[in-house]
Amino acid sequence: MSTIIPPTILKGTRDFTPSQMRQRQQIMQLLQNAFERYGFDPIETPILNPAETILGKYGEEGDRLTYSFQDNGGRQVALPYDLTVPFARYVAVYWRDLPMPFKRYQMQRVWRAEKPQKGRLREFYQCDVDVIGANSLLCEAEIIRIIYDVFTQLQISGFKIQINSRKLMNVILRQYGVTEAQVIPTLRIIDKLNKIGQEAVIAELTTNSIKNAADLMTVLAPAATTAETLKRLEQFDTTELQQVLDYVTQLGVPAECVQVTPTLARGLDYYTGLVIETVVPEAGLGTVCAGGRYDNLCGTFCDQNFSGVGVSFGFERIMLLLEEQANLKTNASAQTLVTLFDQALIPAVLALYQQLQQANIASELYFQPDKLQKQLKYANQKQIPFVLLLGPDEQAAKTVTVKYMVTGVQKTIPQQQLIEYIQGFYV
Amino acid sequence: MSTIIPPTILKGTRDFTPSQMRQRQQIMQLLQNAFERYGFDPIETPILNPAETILGKYGEEGDRLTYSFQDNGGRQVALPYDLTVPFARYVAVYWRDLPMPFKRYQMQRVWRAEKPQKGRLREFYQCDVDVIGANSLLCEAEIIRIIYDVFTQLQISGFKIQINSRKLMNVILRQYGVTEAQVIPTLRIIDKLNKIGQEAVIAELTTNSIKNAADLMTVLAPAATTAETLKRLEQFDTTELQQVLDYVTQLGVPAECVQVTPTLARGLDYYTGLVIETVVPEAGLGTVCAGGRYDNLCGTFCDQNFSGVGVSFGFERIMLLLEEQANLKTNASAQTLVTLFDQALIPAVLALYQQLQQANIASELYFQPDKLQKQLKYANQKQIPFVLLLGPDEQAAKTVTVKYMVTGVQKTIPQQQLIEYIQGFYV
Repeated sequence: MSTIIPPTILKGTRDFTPSQMRQRQQIMQLLQNAFERYGFDPIETPILNPAETILGKYGEEGDRLTYSFQDNGGRQVALPYDLTVPFARYVAVYWRDLPMPFKRYQMQRVWRAEKPQKGRLREFYQCDVDVIGANSLLCEAEIIRIIYDVFTQLQISGFKIQINSRKLMNVILRQYGVTEAQVIPTLRIIDKLNKIGQEAVIAELTTNSIKNAADLMTVLAPAATTAETLKRLEQFDTTELQQVLDYVTQLGVPAECVQVTPTLARGLDYYTGLVIETVVPEAGLGTVCAGGRYDNLCGTFCDQNFSGVGVSFGFERIMLLLEEQANLKTNASAQTLVTLFDQALIPAVLALYQQLQQANIASELYFQPDKLQKQLKYANQKQIPFVLLLGPDEQAAKTVTVKYMVTGVQKTIPQQQLIEYIQGFYV
Repeated sequence: MSTIIPPTILKGTRDFTPSQMRQRQQIMQLLQNAFERYGFDPIETPILNPAETILGKYGEEGDRLTYSFQDNGGRQVALPYDLTVPFARYVAVYWRDLPMPFKRYQMQRVWRAEKPQKGRLREFYQCDVDVIGANSLLCEAEIIRIIYDVFTQLQISGFKIQINSRKLMNVILRQYGVTEAQVIPTLRIIDKLNKIGQEAVIAELTTNSIKNAADLMTVLAPAATTAETLKRLEQFDTTELQQVLDYVTQLGVPAECVQVTPTLARGLDYYTGLVIETVVPEAGLGTVCAGGRYDNLCGTFCDQNFSGVGVSFGFERIMLLLEEQANLKTNASAQTLVTLFDQALIPAVLALYQQLQQANIASELYFQPDKLQKQLKYANQKQIPFVLLLGPDEQAAKTVTVKYMVTGVQKTIPQQQLIEYIQGFYV
C-alpha cells in the first residue's frame, strides 16, 4: 500500500470553493465590463517567461521576490511579478500593428515570494488597465473615472482616490532646497509617512540633510478639502492637478471622491507624471488600486518610447474588502433539482429534465433513487430553490410537484405548465 | 545605456491579442454556461503546488513532462500537469463539506514540457467537468449530453463522441484468451491503432503472445452503425453501453453523434468503466475532449474512495478547430468613438461621452485633437461602428454628426436624440 500524501497547499496560495468562485467570477466580470465599456482591449501573456524578461526590472528586492528557476531543458524561466513588464514586452513585439493610443486590460495571476499575510498572497490576481501612446491628461481623467465606476458599482463605501503630481513635487522640493539628486531619496523617505509617522519622517529627512524638513512636511500635509490643499499650494505649480480635476468633474466623478494628497510619494520615483492610489481608510488594507503616468514603457525591450498611464486593481484585496463590507452574494448555479423516485421513472424524469434544459433553466438531475430526505438535503446544500418531485401518481396524471425550498410550500401542476410556472415565479 | 532584451516568449507559450482574447472569452463563456446549466460548480486550485502533489501520479513520462523546481525557500514545487490530480487533492481536503454527488468544473492553465506542435503547447488551458460520488450511468449520460451541447453550440461540424466500455473489453479479451495480467498491456497496444495501423497492431499483439490477434481486431472493428456494432458484440456484455445509449437518446442526443468504438482503448488502463473520446475526423487534430469513469479518485491524498466520471475539453484544440471551420467572430469592444476636434471642445465632448456611458453604450474618447483622418483610422482599426463628430457648428446647434463606418454614411442629429439613434440603429 502506498503512503498517503497530505493534501496541503503552499502558504500564500489558495483553493477557491464554488461559492468563492461564483463571487470571484462576478467581480471579475464587473471589472471586465467596466474596462470594455471604455473601449479597453483584453490581452493575455505567458506565465512561463524567459527569466531575463522578468528579472532586473524591479530592483534587487523585486528580483529576490520573483519566482525563477531552470526548466528541464536548461532554460532559465520566471513567473510574472506584475502585469506591467509583460505588457511592455507585448508592446515591444506588436507596436507596429497596434491602434495608437493602445488601451489594454489584463487580468491574470502574478507571483511574489513574500511573507504571506492578510491581503498579501504569493499567488494572486491583478487587473491592469493602461493607455499608451497619448499624452493628454484626458487619459488620466479616464483612468480615474474607471476607478470611480468600479468602486461605485462594487458598492464599496468610503473609498478615496488620492492623486499627486511629480511636477508639483519637484517644484516644492526644489523650493525647499532639495537638490535634483536628492529628489528621489527624499520621495522615498516621505513615502514612509503612513508607516513610521510624521516625526520619524522629519528626523530621517533631517539626517539626510534636508533643511526645513518640518516646514516641508507641513506644506505637504493635505488640507480638509482638495480645494484648500490646492489653494495652499497655488504658489507652486498646480496646473496639472487642476486640469485633471476639471476633466474628472466633467466626467461625473464627485469631488469628494478625489483627494489631492501631496504626501503621496509612492511610485513617484518610478512614475513621471500623475500618481494615483485608491484607499479605503477604514479597512486598513493599504492600497487597493494604484498606478500613474510613466515614460518609456518598453525601452528595455525595443528602441521605441511609449508614454502611458495605467493602474492595477488588487483583486484579492478588493475581494477582502467586499467580504468585510458584506457586499458579496452567493448565487446557486441550478434553479431546479429534478429528483429521482425510482429507476422505473427514469424516462419520465429525463423527459422533464430535457424540457427544463431546452427552456434554458439551469437544472440538476439527482442521479440515484436515494431517500427523498437525502435528495432534499442535496438541494439545500446547493441552495437550489425549486425541487421537482415526479412519483408514480404524478407520472400517471402527467403532473409534477414543485417544492419551493425557501418557504417549503409545494404545489402539484400539469407538467406542461412547469416552464411557465418556474419562469413566472419571481415576476 | 542598457542593452535591449529581446521581447521573445518561450516555445510552446503564447501571447493572446485582443481579437484572439475576445474569441477565447466568448468560447470560455459558452463552456462555462453549458457546465452551469447542468448544475456544475466552479473551483480553482493553485498553480504553485508542493511537488509531491503532482509528481508520481502520471508515470515516468508524466513526471518527466512536469514543470517542477526548487523555490527560493528550498521547497520543491510543481505546476499542474492536468486538472484531475488538483481536483483529487481538493476533494481530499473538502469532502466532508461537499454536496454529494459533487459536480465540479474547472478551467485553468496546465503545463507540459512537451515538444510543441500544432494543437500541442507547453502552457495551455483545459476545461474539466467531473461528477463524483454517484455510480449511476445517468452521470455518464449527462456528461455525453454536455459534450453534445457544447460542440453543437460551437457549431463544430462532424464531431463524433466515441464510447467504449472497460467491462465489455474485459469480456472480449478474456474470451480471446488474454490473461488478466495481459489485459492492460493489450489495451495499450490496441490504443496505437490510429498511429501505426491494423497490421502493426496485430503483429505487436502476436509478439506479445496474444493468439488470434487478427480475429480479435476484426471483432473490435466498429461496424457501419452503432446498432450493428452492438449486434455483433451481443454475445459479449453490452448492457452497460446499451443503457448509456438509451439514456443519452432520452436526453435528446441524436444517435449518429455517439459511436460505440470497441477499438477505443486509450485510457482504459486508467479508467474503470465507460471511456469517452470526442474527435472531429476531418480535422486531424486528435482528441478534442476525453475522459471516462474512474474509481478511487483521491486515494493518494486521503483514505476515502470516490468513484466518478468526467471529461476534459482541450480548449486550445477547440480554438484551432473553430479557426479552421471559420466559426469565430471578432467583436469590437466599443460601439462609438467620440472624436476630438480641438481642445476648446473638450467640455462638450466629455458631456457627450458621459451621456453614452450612462446609457451603457461602450464608447471611446479620442484623447487628442489629431487630424480627423487619423481618428477615423483608429476607429477602423478597432472596428468601432459609429464615429461621432462634434465641431464648433455642431456645438452651436447642439447637434452631433454620426458616421456609420460600415457604409460611410453620416447624419447630423440633435445631441439629445443620440442614444435613441444608436440604440435603434440595428433594430
